[in-house]
Amino acid sequence: MFTGLQLKNPDLPFFSHLTLLFTHHLIVMKFSLVLGGLAALASTAVSVKVNPLPAPRNITWGSSGPIPVGDVILRTSDSHHHKHKIVRHAWARAWDTITDLKWVPAATEAPIASYEPFPTGAGLTKRTAVTISSVQVSIVDGDAELQHGVDESYTLDVAASSGSIKIHAQTPWQLIISDGRGGLIIEQPVHIWDAPLYPYRGIMLDTGRNFITVPKILEQIDGMALSKLNVLHWHLDDSQSWPVEMETYPQMTKDAFSPREIFSKSDIRRVIGYAKARGVRVIPEVDMPGHSASGWQQVDPQMVACAHSWWSNDVYKYHTSVEPNPGQLDIIYNKTYEVVKGVYDELSDIFEDNWFHVGADELQTNCYNFSTYVTNWLTEDPSRTYNDLVQYWLDRALPIFRGASPDRRLMMWEDVYLSDPHGTDVPRDIVLQTWNGGLTNIKKLTSSGFDIIVSSSDFLYLDCGRGGIVSNDPRYDVQSNPDGGVNFNYGGNGGSWCAPYKTWQRIYDYDFTTNLTKAEAKHVLGVEAPPMVDSVTVSNEFWPRAAALGELAWSGNRDASGRKRTTLLTQRLLNFREYLVANGVQAQVLLSKYCMQHPHACDLYYNQTVIT
Amino acid sequence: MFTGLQLKNPDLPFFSHLTLLFTHHLIVMKFSLVLGGLAALASTAVSVKVNPLPAPRNITWGSSGPIPVGDVILRTSDSHHHKHKIVRHAWARAWDTITDLKWVPAATEAPIASYEPFPTGAGLTKRTAVTISSVQVSIVDGDAELQHGVDESYTLDVAASSGSIKIHAQTPWQLIISDGRGGLIIEQPVHIWDAPLYPYRGIMLDTGRNFITVPKILEQIDGMALSKLNVLHWHLDDSQSWPVEMETYPQMTKDAFSPREIFSKSDIRRVIGYAKARGVRVIPEVDMPGHSASGWQQVDPQMVACAHSWWSNDVYKYHTSVEPNPGQLDIIYNKTYEVVKGVYDELSDIFEDNWFHVGADELQTNCYNFSTYVTNWLTEDPSRTYNDLVQYWLDRALPIFRGASPDRRLMMWEDVYLSDPHGTDVPRDIVLQTWNGGLTNIKKLTSSGFDIIVSSSDFLYLDCGRGGIVSNDPRYDVQSNPDGGVNFNYGGNGGSWCAPYKTWQRIYDYDFTTNLTKAEAKHVLGVEAPPMVDSVTVSNEFWPRAAALGELAWSGNRDASGRKRTTLLTQRLLNFREYLVANGVQAQVLLSKYCMQHPHACDLYYNQTVIT
Repeated sequence: MFTGLQLKNPDLPFFSHLTLLFTHHLIVMKFSLVLGGLAALASTAVSVKVNPLPAPRNITWGSSGPIPVGDVILRTSDSHHHKHKIVRHAWARAWDTITDLKWVPAATEAPIASYEPFPTGAGLTKRTAVTISSVQVSIVDGDAELQHGVDESYTLDVAASSGSIKIHAQTPWQLIISDGRGGLIIEQPVHIWDAPLYPYRGIMLDTGRNFITVPKILEQIDGMALSKLNVLHWHLDDSQSWPVEMETYPQMTKDAFSPREIFSKSDIRRVIGYAKARGVRVIPEVDMPGHSASGWQQVDPQMVACAHSWWSNDVYKYHTSVEPNPGQLDIIYNKTYEVVKGVYDELSDIFEDNWFHVGADELQTNCYNFSTYVTNWLTEDPSRTYNDLVQYWLDRALPIFRGASPDRRLMMWEDVYLSDPHGTDVPRDIVLQTWNGGLTNIKKLTSSGFDIIVSSSDFLYLDCGRGGIVSNDPRYDVQSNPDGGVNFNYGGNGGSWCAPYKTWQRIYDYDFTTNLTKAEAKHVLGVEAPPMVDSVTVSNEFWPRAAALGELAWSGNRDASGRKRTTLLTQRLLNFREYLVANGVQAQVLLSKYCMQHPHACDLYYNQTVIT
Repeated sequence: MFTGLQLKNPDLPFFSHLTLLFTHHLIVMKFSLVLGGLAALASTAVSVKVNPLPAPRNITWGSSGPIPVGDVILRTSDSHHHKHKIVRHAWARAWDTITDLKWVPAATEAPIASYEPFPTGAGLTKRTAVTISSVQVSIVDGDAELQHGVDESYTLDVAASSGSIKIHAQTPWQLIISDGRGGLIIEQPVHIWDAPLYPYRGIMLDTGRNFITVPKILEQIDGMALSKLNVLHWHLDDSQSWPVEMETYPQMTKDAFSPREIFSKSDIRRVIGYAKARGVRVIPEVDMPGHSASGWQQVDPQMVACAHSWWSNDVYKYHTSVEPNPGQLDIIYNKTYEVVKGVYDELSDIFEDNWFHVGADELQTNCYNFSTYVTNWLTEDPSRTYNDLVQYWLDRALPIFRGASPDRRLMMWEDVYLSDPHGTDVPRDIVLQTWNGGLTNIKKLTSSGFDIIVSSSDFLYLDCGRGGIVSNDPRYDVQSNPDGGVNFNYGGNGGSWCAPYKTWQRIYDYDFTTNLTKAEAKHVLGVEAPPMVDSVTVSNEFWPRAAALGELAWSGNRDASGRKRTTLLTQRLLNFREYLVANGVQAQVLLSKYCMQHPHACDLYYNQTVIT
C-alpha cells in the first residue's frame, strides 16, 4: 500500500499552509474529504468501491482498477480569487490530514459471511502507470454567501487514467465525500454527483445549562464538517446561566457559572469564523420569554417572573417551571422589551447568519402568578387568556426581532403555536422547530403552512435515556422489581422523560416526511439534534450518532430501490467513528471493535433485508 | 482565602519528589486526600464542616474555628523505612495537587432554601494565630501486604490549636478522606475515625470487547484512589480479542484488534505498580470456558468450539452465544487444559494479587453441538448432562488454577453455580460474583455458603440503557408509538437488556444485604461495577457514578440514625465530579452546573426526608 508519507513532498506550494495549522493538528475539515474520499477509494491493490459517509447521492464506478495518488496540486478555475482563500486553506488541511493520519480502515463493507450450518444430528487488478497529481476545482459562483439555501451540490470525477481529480461545484460551500479512510491509491474511473436532500442539517449546543469551552465547540464543528452537517444552533443561555459577554448590559455575566465560563466577543467570532471556513452556519438562540432568569435578572429583577420560586414538581398545581430553576420574562412589564432589544441587537451585530432563534418554548402559566403586572393585566379584562398573553409577547417582541436586518428570518420552538398556552396569530414566516409528537406534529405544522426543522425527541434527542436530571428523587430507591413487569427502574424510563436512549439506528431509520403531501413535505427544511451536555460530555453525546443524522439529511436512509440501507450504514458508521477519534473528536464507542473488523458478524438478523 | 501558591516553599524536602511527577501532572492519588480533605475543611473564614466523599465513618468537630495551613512537613513514626517510600511519594503528590489545583468548591452542602410562597389569590469565627505545619503519620504495621482484607482503617486528628495533623493508621494502605476541595485553612479541632465497611470495592475494566490504553487505565486508578475504591478487576480478554502479550503462546496476540492494541508485560507491570502505590489491587480475569475464542484459537483451533458459527439470536434454537461472536473452550478436548495451564501460569507470574478471576459465565450448550469431542462424550454415556460437562471443567481446571500459589483464591461469575448449565459440586471457597437477580441471587449464594462480590446488573451495570450492541436490528424502525404505551422505542428498554441507565441515586440506594441473616451478610465481601467501554468512553461511564459506589461500600448509604443520606450525597457528588475533572478524570456531567451552585434547588421533592 502506498502511504502519504512516502509520497509527501514538502516543497510543493500548498504545504506552506501546513505550518499555520500546527496548533490545530487534531482538526480535519470537510474539504479534507476531497482527498480523504479519494485516498480511500482503494487501500489495497484489489478493486474497492468505497462506502463514504454520508453516502453521496449518486456514485458511478468504472472498472479500470486502482491507481496511485501522487503529490496533488490544487488548481482552481474561476476568477474570484479572494474567495479561494477558503478553498486553499481547506485544501491544505485536507492534504495535511491525509498525509498525517495515513488512515487505514478496519474493514470495508462486505456481505454478511457464510457460517457453518448448525449441527443438529450431533485477484489483483492490473495497475496503470498513471498517478493522480492534481485536483481541479471549478466553482460557478465564488461569491455565494454561506446562508440558508446556498447551493451545496458538486460533481467529482476521476476519469479513467486521467491523472487528475475534477471537482465542479456551484459554490465554495459544497461538502465533499469521504469515508474517512487513507491509503493513497484510487479506484477509477469514478463519477460522483452529490447534493444535499435538505439545506438545514444541524446540531444544537446548549451553553446555558452547562458551559462548553471554545476548543470543544470547535471539535464539534470538525465532526460536523466531516459528516456534512452545516448548522450549529447555539442555544446561548438558559435560566441557569448567562455566559455571553455583553457591552450593553455587562452585569448579565454575573450569572455566568464563573468568570472562566464566559464567551467573549472574540470567542464568538472565532467560533463563527472557524465554522464558516468549514461551511457551517452558526445560528444563535436566546430563549425567550420562557427559560429566562440568569442574566436578565441582573439588569432588572422585575423583568423576570418567579425567579425565586420553588419549581414545585412535587406539588404540581404550584409548579413554575418544567425543570429547575424557574424564571420567565415578564411579558407585561414595559422595561422587558427595552432590555430584550438591547441584548438582541447586540447579538445580531456579531452573529452573521440571517437566521436567529428566539426560543418561545415551555411557557409555564403558573410562573406568572408571581407577577403583579401579569396578574393585574389578566384581571383588568376578564376575557384575556394566557394565549392572549403569548400573543402580546409576539406583538411587542417580533418587531424588535425583525428589525435587526431586512434579511432576518426567525426560528421558534413549536410550542408557540402548538402548546398551551400558545399565540393566537403566529406569523407563518417563522420557522418552527418541532421537538414533540413525532410525525403528528410535523403534519400539524406543515399543513398549517409553517416551514419546520425536525428535532422530534423520540428520535433525535441524543441525551435521552441517561436518567433524570433532578436530585432527591425517591423513585430510585426500589430494591426489587415490584411486579416483574416494566416499570421505572426495571426496563422502564429510569427517570428520563424521553427514554430510551436514541441509538444510531433509531436516528437513521426516522422517516420524518411520512404521510405528508408534496406541498407539506416542501415545508420540511431539515433536521437537528439537541442534547444537554458539557465540555466533558459533548463529543461523546454527539458522535458518531450525529453522523447518522448527517447522512439521513444529506442523502437519506434508502437506496435507489427505496429500501432502507441501515444495515449498510453499520460498517460506514463504525469506521467513521474511528476516523472521528483519529481526528480528535472524542466519539462514543458503539459496538465491540470485533464487529467493525467483521462486517455484519454482530447483526441481530442474518437476513439482510429485514429492515424495510 | 489562603492559597497553596502563596504558601508553597520549594525548598522543603518533600518538594524534591515533585519534579519526578511532572509527566503525571494530571494524576492525583488517594493520599492527596489527606491534605485535600484537610485543606477543604474550610475555604472561607466562617466555620465549615466539610462533607467529604466518601463520607468517613465518624467525624467529630470542635468549634474553635478555622486556622491556616502553612507549609506542612511529613513526619512518620514507625521503623519500617522501606515502606515509607509509598507514603512519601503519596505525600508529595498530595501536596502538589493541593498547591497546583487551588481547588475552590462551587458550593458546599447547605439546607434546601426557603422560597416565596406560591401566590394563589393572585459571622466570622475568630482566627487563631496557629498555623498547621506538619502532618504526623504513624503506621502500626508498615510491612502489611496489599491483599484482600488488609486493614485500611485510620484516625485523623487536628487538636485545637495544635499546629499539626495526626494520622494513625494500621497499615500504609488506608485511604484518607477528601471532599476534593482546596483552600489551605482548616477547621479545627476535628477527629476522624474511618475504616471501610467492605474490604472489596471494585470496578471492572473489560479490555477484550474493546481495547483501553494504559494511560486511560491509570486515569481510572486515579479516580478509584480519590473515591476509596480498591480493586481493579481486569477482564483481560473476551471472545472478541486477546490483547495480552504472551511468551508461552506468542501467537495469541494475532487476535488483538491491532498491533497497537496489545498490553506488553511492562504495560501490565506499570498498571500494577501504579495501582499499588495508590492502594488499589489488580485482580486479573481470563474468562473461561465461555467467552473464549480469540487468542486460544490461534494456539489450536480445535480447543475452541463454535468459533465460526452464526451466533443466531434470530433463530434462537440454534443460538451459540449470548452476543457476537461465539466461541467456548472445548471442555473434553485434552489439549485445552495444557494450553489453559500455560496461559494461566504465565499470567499468575505477573499479577501479584492472591486472587484470580477465572470467569465461568454464560456457557451456551448449543455451542457444543459444533464439538465432536463433547457430542461424543455425551453420547458415550446417555446419563451425562450439560451440568456434568460443567463439573468436568471444574474437576480438571481447578487443580490448575489452584496450583499457582498456596494463597491463591479464585473468583468466578455466579453462573457456574446458578445457571443452566451449572456445576454439580462447586467448591465453597470460590468467591462468586453475582450479576443477575438482585437480592434474590445474593440470598441464594450467601445462604449456600459462598463468599460473594455484588455486581447486580439492575443496580451496578454502568453501561445499561445505551441501546443494543448489535446491528441490523429492525426494532428501531418504528415511526410512531404503536399503542401509546411503554414499548421498545417509547419509554422502554430500547434494546438494552439491562435498561434503564443506572443513575448515581440508583447505585447509592442499593441495600444489597436486605433480608440476609447475620451469617449470610458476612459472606458479602464487597461490590463491583462493570461496564463495556473503550478508551474514549471509559472515564465517562465510570465517573462520577463509581464514586457513589465507593461511598456505598466505604461508609454506607445511611446516616447514624439509619436514614438514607442520598439527598446529602448530591452536593458531595456534584463537587466531587468537578474535582475528578480538575484532576484529569473525564467524568460525566450529572446535572446543570446551576444545581451544584445552588444546593437542593434541583431536588425533585422539597421534603428532604422523602428517601428513607
